[in-house]
Amino acid sequence: MQNDEHAIRTLVNDWQVAAAEGNLQRLSEMMAEDVVFLTPGQAPLRGREAFMEAFQEGLKHYRIESQGEIKELHVTDDLAYCWTHLTVTVTPHHEGRPMRRSGNTLSILKKRPDTGWVIVRDANMLTAEPVYQPA
Amino acid sequence: MQNDEHAIRTLVNDWQVAAAEGNLQRLSEMMAEDVVFLTPGQAPLRGREAFMEAFQEGLKHYRIESQGEIKELHVTDDLAYCWTHLTVTVTPHHEGRPMRRSGNTLSILKKRPDTGWVIVRDANMLTAEPVYQPA
Repeated sequence: MQNDEHAIRTLVNDWQVAAAEGNLQRLSEMMAEDVVFLTPGQAPLRGREAFMEAFQEGLKHYRIESQGEIKELHVTDDLAYCWTHLTVTVTPHHEGRPMRRSGNTLSILKKRPDTGWVIVRDANMLTAEPVYQPA
Repeated sequence: MQNDEHAIRTLVNDWQVAAAEGNLQRLSEMMAEDVVFLTPGQAPLRGREAFMEAFQEGLKHYRIESQGEIKELHVTDDLAYCWTHLTVTVTPHHEGRPMRRSGNTLSILKKRPDTGWVIVRDANMLTAEPVYQPA
């Protein structure tokens, strides 16, 4: 179980690195094909393909950096949940100010025989926060 | 496992009935003592006692009605997750218009030897929606 916990903590960290680097291949390996992302005020984003398209579109316009702190990780044989406090900074490549969102996420992970642990469901409760602008 | 699934579906339904009735005793039985409720833009609400206090305070001012549709329920031996689409209508006892919030919740449940299935973590992504007002 300690190995499983370590694998999931590594995944959560790798996710942030891969997102910042725009490493689409690595991101796609970390989620199930039928992953669902839930957010407030929007329809569920269903499936790895839909996520990758949306993320790729975002990368055209923004640099995405995130910092996460795992608040809780609970692992059973092949199902786990992870509560993370996340801060995401989205910086436009060209015009516009950086935007920062922060808040909690609750993710469900499953252990698959072939791929190991992958994210299967993700509840994202991040809200916009003011970003300090130097005068 | 079918019994477990039935028990959880019953719990989700009973929760809505108990909330509408203001049945605090029944609500408290359906969550773990160390339950955590996560919502956008607010600090985590930690513990059954904190929830019950907040809910009881709400009942002084509002009638709370909710309708839920389970979108997915995944059950293992003693851990489950449930994705529900929820619509909650909050109607002031005295002045003011009813407010309606809707959206998805992702709940984690654990099976305890003594109490059976209880909610341990809940991610609430409901947002305000306009309520029809007869002219």
